[in-house]
Amino acid sequence: MEHNNTSVDKIAIIGLGLIGGSIGLALKTLRKPKVEIVGFDLRPSQAKRASKMGAIDRAAKDLRSAVENAGLVILAVPILAIRDNLEAIGPLLIPGSVVTDTGSTKEAVLHWAEQYLPDGISFVGGHPMAGKEESGIQAAVPNLFVDRRYCVIPGKNADQDAVKAVTDLVLALKAKPYFLDAVEHDSYVAAVSHLPIVLSAALVSSTQRSPSWREMSKLAATGYRDVSRLASGDPIMNLDICLSNQESLTRWIDYMITELSRYRTMIANGEPELAKELENVHQARNIWLHHFTTGIEEDKKPRVEPPSVTDILLGEFTRRYTKLFDFWEKKQQKGPRK
Amino acid sequence: MEHNNTSVDKIAIIGLGLIGGSIGLALKTLRKPKVEIVGFDLRPSQAKRASKMGAIDRAAKDLRSAVENAGLVILAVPILAIRDNLEAIGPLLIPGSVVTDTGSTKEAVLHWAEQYLPDGISFVGGHPMAGKEESGIQAAVPNLFVDRRYCVIPGKNADQDAVKAVTDLVLALKAKPYFLDAVEHDSYVAAVSHLPIVLSAALVSSTQRSPSWREMSKLAATGYRDVSRLASGDPIMNLDICLSNQESLTRWIDYMITELSRYRTMIANGEPELAKELENVHQARNIWLHHFTTGIEEDKKPRVEPPSVTDILLGEFTRRYTKLFDFWEKKQQKGPRK
Repeated sequence: MEHNNTSVDKIAIIGLGLIGGSIGLALKTLRKPKVEIVGFDLRPSQAKRASKMGAIDRAAKDLRSAVENAGLVILAVPILAIRDNLEAIGPLLIPGSVVTDTGSTKEAVLHWAEQYLPDGISFVGGHPMAGKEESGIQAAVPNLFVDRRYCVIPGKNADQDAVKAVTDLVLALKAKPYFLDAVEHDSYVAAVSHLPIVLSAALVSSTQRSPSWREMSKLAATGYRDVSRLASGDPIMNLDICLSNQESLTRWIDYMITELSRYRTMIANGEPELAKELENVHQARNIWLHHFTTGIEEDKKPRVEPPSVTDILLGEFTRRYTKLFDFWEKKQQKGPRK
Repeated sequence: MEHNNTSVDKIAIIGLGLIGGSIGLALKTLRKPKVEIVGFDLRPSQAKRASKMGAIDRAAKDLRSAVENAGLVILAVPILAIRDNLEAIGPLLIPGSVVTDTGSTKEAVLHWAEQYLPDGISFVGGHPMAGKEESGIQAAVPNLFVDRRYCVIPGKNADQDAVKAVTDLVLALKAKPYFLDAVEHDSYVAAVSHLPIVLSAALVSSTQRSPSWREMSKLAATGYRDVSRLASGDPIMNLDICLSNQESLTRWIDYMITELSRYRTMIANGEPELAKELENVHQARNIWLHHFTTGIEEDKKPRVEPPSVTDILLGEFTRRYTKLFDFWEKKQQKGPRK
């Protein structure tokens, strides 16, 4: 496998946080001696630290000198900053150069690239499915992307060489390139990445607004901790994500509302279907987790535990829960709780 | 602080899994020499292992001999088994003895205790807010309850001495007793413990049912992993929880549906309120996490980071997102996505 075999002899990394810094560190472990890695960050302290850590060869004093004569520009900045950066660097780039990004939504980004980049510049969107609890350059590590998926979403005007350059970058990071279009990408990450953020946030806001939050928060433990974790994410980053993926995200919130209503009905009516559903999600989640942690492809059949509620489904459900349902029925006959 | 200073000289632990086993291990580190701890589990292998680990003094051959002459009976079994056990042990208990449980819902359990236990037997419900990913006796540890809340919910007929006996048990486990009534308890755990289970399950079932699940699952990463974690819980335990807390849980699902609709509107309309909300949940969750991890009471003011989106709120919101909203508006004018 060959890396960086295009004619790139200067790479610019704009934004030296966790992602930008980790890309720099990974590239520095294997790049050819003639390729220079120049970094820029609006926060001089981050750039200085990146330089000290060896994530870049040198820190540029401004955006212009960073991208000047660069064959490949990597925008590792928040979504809204991608737009501003594309607008700013458009007139500064050399013909034939390639621009990529690491943002978590793609439709809007590709739209901006089309709008702001002149002819002769290729944009190939990127989105590494890698992260960490910590953020900032101090959290950067060279192996952040190893064995992780890295979405590659070529813009309309991207030529073959540009797609190859970005694919080579992904392979150089030891990540797995995953090709898809922007609409697919945004719909998928809305479901598996952005919807979970909204669920965490809505769990925290609904419980915290309760008049009993003071008491109930004392009973919140590890389950609450995990499901609410994403509410602790950077609020600006979460805001950018929500607003740059409005269409897909609102569609997925609608699906989730429908799904919660379905669970509500199954629970309220004590439907045996609920047993099947809980067994189903238990299996599905364990299969997914197996793939996620081992990196083994979905085609290989994983080892999962045998169904455990089969006995309940085989006529046992009613026997097991009859007395429980009696209790709820009697309670309801007594009228609603005051 | 005095422990086990009631006249109990035999304690029976029914159910020797993670919770029952950990209670035994903790008691054995400090009990008075004259108190015997007898265990029983329907699975002889669990009882044998508990005995070997030193969680109990001896394993009883059946439920009858386990509770015979016991001053305190601890039911550490799943919710539905609590009902069956109460029914079975009712006629076997000595007058003045105390029964407690460790189930995660309380209204139905207290109802069954009233129904099945004869006069002269006190029931004092318990619910330790402690757990682990792993289950079974092999995961039991003596310090499982240290500094964790332990709900104490006396039944109607419980006398003062019985409440004191169970409180002493909680203190012996080095946990923090927390007194509340069954309705409060079930409402609180519905919000912070059972609703998160339903959210995890609904996230998994809605994404997994998507025709694109195969592709989208490849993009699911740590955020999906954490928010979906509770879907991997034992399906029977989750089923018991949902069906034994129907009333409070369905009410909380309703709140969550309303909350998700509110987020949907804020996202779809790009309302500045969304920035405030994400900042709010970020702070609230970090404050809660601080209390949870340090064990410091809610009254002490925690150190939290200063608001980070204040600039956005001060008129910056519109400037930051205008071009994004333009993009979505133009897209919608072109008609809905095919």
